[in-house]
Amino acid sequence: MPTLTSKDNKLIKTAVKLKKSAKFRKKTGLFVAEGVRICVDAMLSGVVIDTLFVTKAAAEKNAAEYEKLSQYSKNTFTVTPELFGYISDTQSPQGFLCLIKTLDKSCQFDTIKVNGKFIALDNMQDPNNMGTVLRSCEAFGVTGVIMSADCCDVFSPKVVRGSMGAVFRLPFIICDTIADYLEAHPQLNSYAAVVDSDAEPLTEVKFDLPCVAVIGNEGNGLKPQTIDSCNHRITIPMGGKAESLNASAAAAVLIWEMIK
Amino acid sequence: MPTLTSKDNKLIKTAVKLKKSAKFRKKTGLFVAEGVRICVDAMLSGVVIDTLFVTKAAAEKNAAEYEKLSQYSKNTFTVTPELFGYISDTQSPQGFLCLIKTLDKSCQFDTIKVNGKFIALDNMQDPNNMGTVLRSCEAFGVTGVIMSADCCDVFSPKVVRGSMGAVFRLPFIICDTIADYLEAHPQLNSYAAVVDSDAEPLTEVKFDLPCVAVIGNEGNGLKPQTIDSCNHRITIPMGGKAESLNASAAAAVLIWEMIK
Repeated sequence: MPTLTSKDNKLIKTAVKLKKSAKFRKKTGLFVAEGVRICVDAMLSGVVIDTLFVTKAAAEKNAAEYEKLSQYSKNTFTVTPELFGYISDTQSPQGFLCLIKTLDKSCQFDTIKVNGKFIALDNMQDPNNMGTVLRSCEAFGVTGVIMSADCCDVFSPKVVRGSMGAVFRLPFIICDTIADYLEAHPQLNSYAAVVDSDAEPLTEVKFDLPCVAVIGNEGNGLKPQTIDSCNHRITIPMGGKAESLNASAAAAVLIWEMIK
Repeated sequence: MPTLTSKDNKLIKTAVKLKKSAKFRKKTGLFVAEGVRICVDAMLSGVVIDTLFVTKAAAEKNAAEYEKLSQYSKNTFTVTPELFGYISDTQSPQGFLCLIKTLDKSCQFDTIKVNGKFIALDNMQDPNNMGTVLRSCEAFGVTGVIMSADCCDVFSPKVVRGSMGAVFRLPFIICDTIADYLEAHPQLNSYAAVVDSDAEPLTEVKFDLPCVAVIGNEGNGLKPQTIDSCNHRITIPMGGKAESLNASAAAAVLIWEMIK
């Protein structure tokens, strides 16, 4: 198996650029997943793994995972620990990193099932929040996630890691705007989550199926046109003093109430 | 007002060390809060602000906040933008940072009120999670938070920022172990949050007051001795495939159910 040692190697340069640039991920149709567990999750979900990078020590320590992954991946390279630190996005790299073909899940959205329960994200900007939301969606069995094009990149390393691999398994679609999407899918009962005591309190909301709960930007909430495009305005009643919850915490409570 | 320009200035060195070292925060009894909003929140909550650092541009841009804060703070210094970037913990510094006396809130815990609703954190390690949990606690009106001594430092910059200032306002206490604390406070009805389908599902739990929901470590959950010390074992039923929720997402759902 070939060993890469130089930062100037073309593949190494590609990996670093994929880690950093959403534009480059879009252009190449590739993204990065890092860590033994996440790489195995990727394989088990059936994605195309283009390249696997491992350190010798990590391959020996995780021999069973390494064997399966290196057979599954189109290409496998060992890299020196120094070089791995260079392509890694984490402070304590595990020595497994792979380049994966981005997923087109649009077909999974062709038909909105009558009993579907969806989450829509409108201009969510923080990849840690998005990763946590995707993880919550999978944990609670959300049917699928609809994201506006101005959300952060779902294929960024932080989202992939924070989602604990949910990004591989969860159906999602990226649309121009949530308002457009809802207009094109009038059968979806839409619930805009707002911070407004006049909105319907979550404790009293009855989610009619198929339904979608729409969550906004961390600082600014939902766009006015997104709210206008929804059938309902709902809010999480808060007894305390804080203005609002963290977006991923609010999402967890919304998903919980929608699903349970 | 004095202007600091050198990285070798003793106060600047102190600020940087306070940003990085929990041990140094403990030794000096000081911690760092950064950002216009957070610094104003600190002042409004009545904490002792020892030192305020601002850039000239930020002081001019936020003149009203600057005037109040500089009157409130014992000492105020302007620093150059370069120097501010050096003491700052954020990628886009707002030009306001203050050093605050750590808070002793033990007295607020002297009596567990009969209608109190508490959260306990057992070995929570991620400061982003802790900040989000504190923010959720404040938003939902949790009475107070009990933390084991092996949690991450509540005065770390990430916790302070992620909590949106809740750390200034929310009663909390740090104890050696949650098990010891519960043993010393037998009047508290304790609910250990576990990932175990045999535990009582959250949908069926009736929280008897005063109560405490106990949340564990991100990777390992609760320690066995913590679970043993609790009256109840509860779990968040999940229909989906993920093994468990992110700790702060699980906390949000638990707090929501406990409070609503």
